[in-house]
Amino acid sequence: MALEGFINQNSSKWMEETNQPYSDVVLSSRIRLARNINSLPFPSVADAKSLKEVEKTISKGMSKLEDFQFLSMNGLTHEDKLTLVEKHLISPQLINENKNSGVWLNKDESVSIMVNEEDHIRTQVVLPGLNLEEGYKIADEIDDKLEASIDFAFSENIGYLTACPTNVGTGLRASVMVHLPALVLTKQINRILTAVSQLGLAVRGIYGEGSESLGNIMQISNQVTLGQSEAEIIDNLKRVTKQIIDHEYNSRKYLLEENQVSVKDKAYRAYGILSNAYSISSKEALELLSYLKLGVDLKLVDGIKPQFFKQLIVITRPGFLQKLYGHTLNTETRDIKRAEVIREILKK
Amino acid sequence: MALEGFINQNSSKWMEETNQPYSDVVLSSRIRLARNINSLPFPSVADAKSLKEVEKTISKGMSKLEDFQFLSMNGLTHEDKLTLVEKHLISPQLINENKNSGVWLNKDESVSIMVNEEDHIRTQVVLPGLNLEEGYKIADEIDDKLEASIDFAFSENIGYLTACPTNVGTGLRASVMVHLPALVLTKQINRILTAVSQLGLAVRGIYGEGSESLGNIMQISNQVTLGQSEAEIIDNLKRVTKQIIDHEYNSRKYLLEENQVSVKDKAYRAYGILSNAYSISSKEALELLSYLKLGVDLKLVDGIKPQFFKQLIVITRPGFLQKLYGHTLNTETRDIKRAEVIREILKK
Repeated sequence: MALEGFINQNSSKWMEETNQPYSDVVLSSRIRLARNINSLPFPSVADAKSLKEVEKTISKGMSKLEDFQFLSMNGLTHEDKLTLVEKHLISPQLINENKNSGVWLNKDESVSIMVNEEDHIRTQVVLPGLNLEEGYKIADEIDDKLEASIDFAFSENIGYLTACPTNVGTGLRASVMVHLPALVLTKQINRILTAVSQLGLAVRGIYGEGSESLGNIMQISNQVTLGQSEAEIIDNLKRVTKQIIDHEYNSRKYLLEENQVSVKDKAYRAYGILSNAYSISSKEALELLSYLKLGVDLKLVDGIKPQFFKQLIVITRPGFLQKLYGHTLNTETRDIKRAEVIREILKK
Repeated sequence: MALEGFINQNSSKWMEETNQPYSDVVLSSRIRLARNINSLPFPSVADAKSLKEVEKTISKGMSKLEDFQFLSMNGLTHEDKLTLVEKHLISPQLINENKNSGVWLNKDESVSIMVNEEDHIRTQVVLPGLNLEEGYKIADEIDDKLEASIDFAFSENIGYLTACPTNVGTGLRASVMVHLPALVLTKQINRILTAVSQLGLAVRGIYGEGSESLGNIMQISNQVTLGQSEAEIIDNLKRVTKQIIDHEYNSRKYLLEENQVSVKDKAYRAYGILSNAYSISSKEALELLSYLKLGVDLKLVDGIKPQFFKQLIVITRPGFLQKLYGHTLNTETRDIKRAEVIREILKK
């Protein structure tokens, strides 16, 4: 089937299902290392020649890594760039910068190495479920291989130097994407998120900084990159994430015991609308998909494959819809096509 | 199937589908004649003996009519009485009066003759679609047969005498139950209804006086019973009803041409919720059923039998649900059972 093929071709590693614990709440884990090349200016102040030099230096470094492919931003259509953002493989910023920027991708799209984003190099590993250690291990190995041929900007006192002071030191940003519908339904979410930010962690929406928390999906990441080791940063995030998971599980238990009728009703209505609507906005779709997933996770709704959620939150984004239908779509048409894709996926 | 059998057993004539024109908009036509027995006091001021006398006199009169069965209000459970109201066979008032009141019903439930309601006799004929003349013909024949043995309270100057002055003269109330979703969606409804009341007609909700206009269903009836002949009353109501139907059809045409996506979406979402919800209030159900029916009428939604609408607006009422499940249900359980019945009917 055309749509199924399209999805399989366009899936990233993190969108796969995993049997690891907590993967009903933790959609994905991400590790990102920011690095810069010594003696070359940061991209924001660099001229074209210097940016080209960055690109070349990294290309040389990448020769030690197998199965990576370089996508130059200049060579991509707007839709292709958008889909990379929608799959969380590149940052929205990389689309806007048009200066010899690009991304190295491995085959299963678990690793993406952005070139000339805010820093010269941003190595990113995204895996399904709660799997920060494995992600860091992969990122660290790549980092070592790159460092073998590239002279990174590094200070003995501070650590890795980065364009923005918030990344200086380890250059590490670790984050988890969590789905917390029960905490939202039981109105516990604000209390929890306030506590999280007091623990030195940042909470963002599904598409990072400045993006809304749609579909009860939040990204939680470390704010501090300096003065803590990589292991400490990851441990801290993991510990807090496990506490959040516990709270979410408790809220789910509460809902099952005290509010089962209304949760089941909410989940089935979401299914009813999603599998029948003729037009649907991205925002509404995410919200309904969230409550349907809660129903599936709580075994109140059956007959739906668990991977529907990650697949649909990605392929119903504007870039993907336009790529799927092969041309630019206005908002109205996108809403109709989005509804079509959702109906088709849920039918199976 | 249990539910299907229950519905077939409990259907009234007007709930059947008809091929007559306009039956997509006009759900039913009703004729009601108010009569009283000469020399016996009106029920509101009558003592038990006198009410008994009324009952007996009518019983005697009914012997000329075949296939009628008498249901005494005293002999019915609360649920049975409620279902009679919900099928529009008796008035809500008849439930509350507990004075030798009852109803004579014919086999297909097209005719109901209430005894000791506000008047001694209220003969009512309800038929599917726009069919006021046929309804009046049937009511008039019954009235003649009753009058052959019963001395009706009648004044040469005024006509038939009734307990309430608003019924004096012909004692005729003719009404149509119309479904006007397109006039509601295009926000024309208030303008139309204001015009209707200026033409001497009354507009009421689905369950008559004082009831809300739920599910975009309205009852339109004559206000004047005096100074016009029966034929004039019926002609006037029919003429205005046809104008309302025209306006509704024009609004449907407008929606199809200018707003097809949103109407189709509204109808399919209604279907999605109705066929999946686990709990639903009577009010929401009526509203969604209305938009689903609009989608079916406009051929935007297919695979649904047209009779779903009249069946479901009746059998999802509290009395019917309680009769179906055999015992009293609280609101929460009723909402769950209502959702169950709707899911089952729409599945077919």
